[in-house]
Amino acid sequence: MSERPPRTIEWIGDANGFVRIIDQTLLPIELRYRDCRSVEEVWEAIRSLRVRGAPAIGIAAAMGVVIGLQGHLNDFSPQLDRVCDYLATSRPTAVNLFWAIERMRCLARNLSATHAAQQIHDTLLAEAMAIEDEDRRMCWSIGENGAALIAEASGVLTHCNAGALATADHGTALAVLYAAHAQGKRLKVFADETRPLLQGARLTAWELKERGLDVTLICDSMAAQVMKEGKIQAVIVGADRIAANGDTANKIGTYGVAVLAKAHCIPFYVAAPSSTFDLSLQSGNGIPIEQRDPREVTHGLGRQTAPDGVTVYNPAFDVTPAALITAIITERGVIRPVTEEKVRQVLGG
Amino acid sequence: MSERPPRTIEWIGDANGFVRIIDQTLLPIELRYRDCRSVEEVWEAIRSLRVRGAPAIGIAAAMGVVIGLQGHLNDFSPQLDRVCDYLATSRPTAVNLFWAIERMRCLARNLSATHAAQQIHDTLLAEAMAIEDEDRRMCWSIGENGAALIAEASGVLTHCNAGALATADHGTALAVLYAAHAQGKRLKVFADETRPLLQGARLTAWELKERGLDVTLICDSMAAQVMKEGKIQAVIVGADRIAANGDTANKIGTYGVAVLAKAHCIPFYVAAPSSTFDLSLQSGNGIPIEQRDPREVTHGLGRQTAPDGVTVYNPAFDVTPAALITAIITERGVIRPVTEEKVRQVLGG
Repeated sequence: MSERPPRTIEWIGDANGFVRIIDQTLLPIELRYRDCRSVEEVWEAIRSLRVRGAPAIGIAAAMGVVIGLQGHLNDFSPQLDRVCDYLATSRPTAVNLFWAIERMRCLARNLSATHAAQQIHDTLLAEAMAIEDEDRRMCWSIGENGAALIAEASGVLTHCNAGALATADHGTALAVLYAAHAQGKRLKVFADETRPLLQGARLTAWELKERGLDVTLICDSMAAQVMKEGKIQAVIVGADRIAANGDTANKIGTYGVAVLAKAHCIPFYVAAPSSTFDLSLQSGNGIPIEQRDPREVTHGLGRQTAPDGVTVYNPAFDVTPAALITAIITERGVIRPVTEEKVRQVLGG
Repeated sequence: MSERPPRTIEWIGDANGFVRIIDQTLLPIELRYRDCRSVEEVWEAIRSLRVRGAPAIGIAAAMGVVIGLQGHLNDFSPQLDRVCDYLATSRPTAVNLFWAIERMRCLARNLSATHAAQQIHDTLLAEAMAIEDEDRRMCWSIGENGAALIAEASGVLTHCNAGALATADHGTALAVLYAAHAQGKRLKVFADETRPLLQGARLTAWELKERGLDVTLICDSMAAQVMKEGKIQAVIVGADRIAANGDTANKIGTYGVAVLAKAHCIPFYVAAPSSTFDLSLQSGNGIPIEQRDPREVTHGLGRQTAPDGVTVYNPAFDVTPAALITAIITERGVIRPVTEEKVRQVLGG
């Protein structure tokens, strides 16, 4: 990574500054930054997926709280609640969104008895920057922990976008590839386009190319063929939620890639921060499979590609059993073999 | 099949009549017929994929020869060569195209010493209708031979379009489903959309729905998940070319589906006419993998969905080893187990 890559999200200025994001709705056609100077603009950027990926959304919301309090030093406390409640309505399911907002709200409340509004405002900005910095360091640690698993001159397949565009920087699965690349390993990365929403084609291919990695785009249906041709030595993906036994929910298509990897004797790695684990779930059976809008499949690409009224099955993610996962790479270390005992050992350590 | 389904291709009138095709470039948005009354219109319909699928192209070309000779009873012989040579330039690789044109040309030449031009013209129309009829009966036999393999109340997954739209009628893989449906079996068909060209979404979902079958469209990346959920009891696909040992080349993605089927203990069937076998090939290793235009992947859906200049790997088909194929269904019988001995036995019988 010789040149400084574009930053997914960035705070510009002091507590009266603003948030600058990459408008991801314009990728991969155009790299354009968007400055959000009001809380409404931050809300809209999250809502419209201009900024997406759970960690990046959390950072944007935390920065949105700071923006929402600008010019409200005289009604700081009621405005804090208004801003936090409002930002929490921007997306329905992203757990980092609510987590980041509550972290900001609790900090402000704890300080309110002893500190002046201006001091609290400055501290909230520092907290938002801390959330961003923690995420960046977490991604970096995942990369460092995982890079050793990627051999020199490997072909690596990835699915969806678990990259810098979803986080403060580096990403999770892609952080491992960036770290291996930085160590001088020559990699040939294959990116599944990831239907229906094409995060692989639109985002992963873009950011890998942008950072100087050798990336080849394929359709999801081609993964088996590139494996058969000996082009793939490792698969690495991110995760949405991981159960105590290591069963991993991730973007639809991940499970199929894991089955194909096993059939071709290719190691299959998951990279995710420890916050992705839900130890209250004994196994992946407890993870509900969300069904999404059929139009993502029939109309998702600029024009209608299927008959009117056709029945569509559109699960948003699937669950890969721990038995298909060679190792899970976290910021706290590598879980291998993927068993509940090892999960608890690495996360607790 | 209670109502008469739309016909992919049809001759209207006597030897001075015309060809009526479904304009498949408008599917699935609109079912519109297109009448081709000149050889140029037939050529354009083949070239522009208004009619596609190897058998359907062969029939269209044979009918195009008849049209091209209309009004040329006085210069029949030179016009025959002009028309045949011209139609052969419409598509580069469809073997049925050249086969059908040569069949028509040879018949006309054989008759030319003893018959008047008008008689030859009428005989050529009868020959074109015979090519169509042979194809229809071949499809029907495949359907009848395969229907017994599909159990009542099955979920069946198919990939690409091996259906009525590619043939005179019924298709190959879909003929099996139409026959099982006609026998009163309640099927739940899942159609892979089949990236990059979406034949599954555009054509298979359309024709199954049109003929009253219960069809659900999925993205290719969802096949593993529907298998895991127990929704699939059989997979059935067509074939582009089958080697002597049963290794089968078919649309890209087929091999991956076969691996997934085996991992889920689901039978995997190939349906194809005996003409698809290339017994000069000992195995599928001899089948070259055609690479197609990257723009099919990056721009195939009405807008650009990947970064400018990204490297793309776009194989048009893959080869499924015989070991992953439960049975091959032909018009001459069912090849099971899929071994060279059994292939030669059924095809020779």
